Amino acid sequence: MKALVYHGAGKKSWEEKPKPVILEQTDTIIKIIKTTICGTDLHILKGDVPEVTKGRILGHEGVGIIEEVGSAITEFKQGDHVLISCITSCGKCEYCKKGMYSHCEKGGWILGHLIDGTQAEYVRIPFADNSLYHIPENADEEALVMLSDILPTAFECGVLNGQVKPGDTVAIVGAGPIGLAVLITAQFYTPAKIIMIDIDDNRLNVAKTFGATQTINSSNENAFEKVMNLTDKRGVDVAIEAVGVPATFELCESIIASGGHIANVGVHGKSVSLHLETLWSKNITITTRLVDTVTTSMLLKTVTSKKLDPAKLITHRFALKDVEHAYDVFQNAATEKTLKVILINE
Amino acid sequence: MKALVYHGAGKKSWEEKPKPVILEQTDTIIKIIKTTICGTDLHILKGDVPEVTKGRILGHEGVGIIEEVGSAITEFKQGDHVLISCITSCGKCEYCKKGMYSHCEKGGWILGHLIDGTQAEYVRIPFADNSLYHIPENADEEALVMLSDILPTAFECGVLNGQVKPGDTVAIVGAGPIGLAVLITAQFYTPAKIIMIDIDDNRLNVAKTFGATQTINSSNENAFEKVMNLTDKRGVDVAIEAVGVPATFELCESIIASGGHIANVGVHGKSVSLHLETLWSKNITITTRLVDTVTTSMLLKTVTSKKLDPAKLITHRFALKDVEHAYDVFQNAATEKTLKVILINE
Amino acid sequence: MKALVYHGAGKKSWEEKPKPVILEQTDTIIKIIKTTICGTDLHILKGDVPEVTKGRILGHEGVGIIEEVGSAITEFKQGDHVLISCITSCGKCEYCKKGMYSHCEKGGWILGHLIDGTQAEYVRIPFADNSLYHIPENADEEALVMLSDILPTAFECGVLNGQVKPGDTVAIVGAGPIGLAVLITAQFYTPAKIIMIDIDDNRLNVAKTFGATQTINSSNENAFEKVMNLTDKRGVDVAIEAVGVPATFELCESIIASGGHIANVGVHGKSVSLHLETLWSKNITITTRLVDTVTTSMLLKTVTSKKLDPAKLITHRFALKDVEHAYDVFQNAATEKTLKVILINE
Amino acid sequence: MKALVYHGAGKKSWEEKPKPVILEQTDTIIKIIKTTICGTDLHILKGDVPEVTKGRILGHEGVGIIEEVGSAITEFKQGDHVLISCITSCGKCEYCKKGMYSHCEKGGWILGHLIDGTQAEYVRIPFADNSLYHIPENADEEALVMLSDILPTAFECGVLNGQVKPGDTVAIVGAGPIGLAVLITAQFYTPAKIIMIDIDDNRLNVAKTFGATQTINSSNENAFEKVMNLTDKRGVDVAIEAVGVPATFELCESIIASGGHIANVGVHGKSVSLHLETLWSKNITITTRLVDTVTTSMLLKTVTSKKLDPAKLITHRFALKDVEHAYDVFQNAATEKTLKVILINE
Repeated sequence: MKALVYHGAGKKSWEEKPKPVILEQTDTIIKIIKTTICGTDLHILKGDVPEVTKGRILGHEGVGIIEEVGSAITEFKQGDHVLISCITSCGKCEYCKKGMYSHCEKGGWILGHLIDGTQAEYVRIPFADNSLYHIPENADEEALVMLSDILPTAFECGVLNGQVKPGDTVAIVGAGPIGLAVLITAQFYTPAKIIMIDIDDNRLNVAKTFGATQTINSSNENAFEKVMNLTDKRGVDVAIEAVGVPATFELCESIIASGGHIANVGVHGKSVSLHLETLWSKNITITTRLVDTVTTSMLLKTVTSKKLDPAKLITHRFALKDVEHAYDVFQNAATEKTLKVILINE
Repeated sequence: MKALVYHGAGKKSWEEKPKPVILEQTDTIIKIIKTTICGTDLHILKGDVPEVTKGRILGHEGVGIIEEVGSAITEFKQGDHVLISCITSCGKCEYCKKGMYSHCEKGGWILGHLIDGTQAEYVRIPFADNSLYHIPENADEEALVMLSDILPTAFECGVLNGQVKPGDTVAIVGAGPIGLAVLITAQFYTPAKIIMIDIDDNRLNVAKTFGATQTINSSNENAFEKVMNLTDKRGVDVAIEAVGVPATFELCESIIASGGHIANVGVHGKSVSLHLETLWSKNITITTRLVDTVTTSMLLKTVTSKKLDPAKLITHRFALKDVEHAYDVFQNAATEKTLKVILINE
Repeated sequence: MKALVYHGAGKKSWEEKPKPVILEQTDTIIKIIKTTICGTDLHILKGDVPEVTKGRILGHEGVGIIEEVGSAITEFKQGDHVLISCITSCGKCEYCKKGMYSHCEKGGWILGHLIDGTQAEYVRIPFADNSLYHIPENADEEALVMLSDILPTAFECGVLNGQVKPGDTVAIVGAGPIGLAVLITAQFYTPAKIIMIDIDDNRLNVAKTFGATQTINSSNENAFEKVMNLTDKRGVDVAIEAVGVPATFELCESIIASGGHIANVGVHGKSVSLHLETLWSKNITITTRLVDTVTTSMLLKTVTSKKLDPAKLITHRFALKDVEHAYDVFQNAATEKTLKVILINE
Repeated sequence: MKALVYHGAGKKSWEEKPKPVILEQTDTIIKIIKTTICGTDLHILKGDVPEVTKGRILGHEGVGIIEEVGSAITEFKQGDHVLISCITSCGKCEYCKKGMYSHCEKGGWILGHLIDGTQAEYVRIPFADNSLYHIPENADEEALVMLSDILPTAFECGVLNGQVKPGDTVAIVGAGPIGLAVLITAQFYTPAKIIMIDIDDNRLNVAKTFGATQTINSSNENAFEKVMNLTDKRGVDVAIEAVGVPATFELCESIIASGGHIANVGVHGKSVSLHLETLWSKNITITTRLVDTVTTSMLLKTVTSKKLDPAKLITHRFALKDVEHAYDVFQNAATEKTLKVILINE
């Protein structure tokens, strides 16, 4: 089969690889229908994720058809259309029992990371009974690719951890795909105001059409001051960091109201300054989380009932064999006005 | 009357001051029976709390007898024995309605800070109906001085924010009075293990008698390694910072298990490094809080029912007029083996 | 002044009464701008609420202008436009401190019940600092009358107690004004399906325009069977009783899914059968509540930010002096297609 | 092998049965070390549980040694000492993922109910990876039999659902083994008062030694009045029903304070009267639950750390072959002063 293979920092190629086979009774083999590229894939390609070794097939998102099931699989059968979770869950360890699949002792984020991933014609999914989801009939399968990672990440790490409530004022720092996914899912809880902060006017304009009530371009406005003006100097109830660098996290620290919640979504490569000299007495909560994908079933219900339209995150479509070009378009997001791309295994 | 007056960094004196009078209808005047000294008072005396101006009477804890009530007071009358909360609550603002009295728009921590305090023969208590508590009959009034600040602080900022649960492994970093108060109130929730970390063997020995299951003297042991050994390399479910310096907060960051809670109790004077490069994916929660004293009624019930014995935090007693000497003994805690002192207005 | 006075079961009249005066320092006198009639007022008129004695002025909802304030009032002044809460809160008792204003030791539901109410040209509001809300500038004051009682009741007793979550299937039994208010506020949490059950096709049609995804007329359909069909035989995640008779409560018992929540909103006059022989093992939660109006500030934010449009509950308007006619129209709801009426003090 | 077999209402015998064999890959075969009898077994024998068919081996509790594992078992191996959960969890269905194992689509309470149980020399445990627990080294295995059912039932259905908090006043209605197990585990949360109500003085005396602060013999005292006297006429914060008949549930309804929680633990055979005519406005919560055994790991930690001593529930020991006599002693609890019996497979 063909697959996108990592060959060390900056190097990848679409090349022939052996088709995966069942290794454990709890495995399935999936024929990919559609997949996508994640910001994390770009991090890997920069060489920032050293656990990814040369020869690894990238990708951890997608929908597909079950080709073969291991002997212990009970919930799926050949031919089923399935959504692949970016997080693999054994269903048996202490963390899985707590709903913290991200820290599953045998799973967690392994696809396209510690084992071969989904940017390929076929993929092996371990612990498939607990790591796949049936696709409801008549569903828009392309849209569901957004439920592999970006929507549960935005919802769990940003919205749930941030404890967004009706009437709240929420700031989202970063209007990339993940920040926009936070914006969409935050509206499940009817906040009064959602302030979107970014340096890209195009993305801020998209944010307005997605429901942001205010936008701030922090490259030409003082974001701290503008947020204070928008909030009677109190700051925001919830600040969601969706970039992953110190400056944006510290912006969250500066704009959070007393009693507020800072929810980190960004992947960070270095430490940040936590200003406890002012925050110690502000009754705030800071959370971090690797997505657990415990809300995937719930998100499926909101899609089925038309309360959530994941398709609006998709801006570009490519044949899977053109994945290398798709990476370019995804990487040059500002120029190409890219949010999420879909790769179609034709 | 006589009172302990702050005269700038390092300077204080027990001297004559005018007896306080009712300024607002919601005030009371209290004759102090017993009061104490808080670690925060030492910070003030170092000059670390610039809002405290020269001439201020110090102190924000105590029990007393009501001498006079303002015309709008409905819950108390002359002669009532009362517990003074370190936090003043107007009972009407948005924060008070949310139970976040620490951020009351007209109150909060003002005693011995922005207005005159309790290390005096008399004190004026604003918003008294919402800031005092009736002392139950036959109560040990001396013990209740511990409910003005240290016990609600330990319980709310440490134990409640840390979400201590039955079966948990808890680390408390700092075995001073506040850390020990965390230790006592953490046991309300029956954790399996409580690891106490400090650099003072005397305090660690006290911690053992107060219920610590393990102690670590971090001046001669590697606290990180020892905690990892005690927890099968997983770290602790709850880490409570009760010192207020970067090193101890960062120790909490290093020993927290995935899914764990870091609850800050310490008063910090500078920023700390938050290691998001490792913590971003660990599903942790960090909280800060200035005590709200919303649990004072509940703590009174646990004292009345003998589930909590605050008296064991008291090591020394002085006449109120000897308050300057008492400060010395409280400050030289290691040498004097001081936890909390009681000052008696004889 | 003129007021609507209760004269025993079935008797009321619009008549001259003395204008109220300040009795306590914490009182205000309000000139009513607009008020409304509640289903509870009809119960009183039937004689079902014996605590209401002859001579009582009815009504517990409204907006007005402050005419006079007691000497202890700090948050309001003459001329302020205010929303009157149906629940009076002293702000000082144990229940008020817990946010359970409904059980305030000196307040609770007293307006138009234990003291004179709002269906009058003027009303005395006790504990006004904790029982009134400032009306934001440019607000639609008429719409805000819906925030005195019906919307917080629907939201707190129905939606919050029912723990409505994104993706849930919710059944609301009763499509009268209160059931419709539940329907509107349930959507703050983006449930997937909201099934509205009533016996009045007009109200069910209104429910559809207000966001119900399915409706059932239980007078000509088997509601239990239809709900089961709509839910793959599992039942609903949340069942909200908004009628107040045994049959509707027992319908909720029969349609609740394992793990679900039954939230009672209706005012009941007799006991119901709780089928523990089947429910004991179904992991369900049943809640009751008299509205606390702790969410009034939050609801005001959702109105100001256009997330909630209370005006759509209003179907009829009358001059306050025509209140007796308004009662007729409100009572003949089916014929008149009445939801809520507004009474205007011209 | 030998086993206790149900032969219809009132009939059981210790007789030869075929040794169980692996039927599914996820099964294990366990050699029973110790087991016990549950109140539910008595219900079955009365004929109250019609799903139990003639020929069924009874029992759903016990500790044992793994004799054989199915091919899909990964967490256990032959020779492991294990605790058997009364609830079987597949680990894959929607309910298991929510932690609601009691309603597992393929499991739940099936042992000694829908499939053969543990009052036998050997038992087949389906979905063993998710339904067994490793016994820690040096553990008191006999005491752990109490963790199969009674302690998680008491804790989850009674204490957790009742939301027992520090300082609370709790009433437990029923001082049989399950009520006493509630009493023990309620103390994890340090309530101020625990009032135990029963009609058996022996059990009430046991309750006192187990930590009850007050006891009421409702056969010769008016339980309602006495509770009111003990609570300043407010009622209790938490009322836990541990009997399963209408009278005791209605007692809970009558003694619950405004804002309180009624947690049902008893197994009910008929409906009860829910007095909504008074309760509708009391802000109460009523819960039901079939134990999920989601807290078994946590309870194991409290046993290992000596915070919980399950052995004190055990009053009698028998050889497994004398199980019929053991049933007599268990049934004649009042005369024999029986709490829990242990059956030893010698």
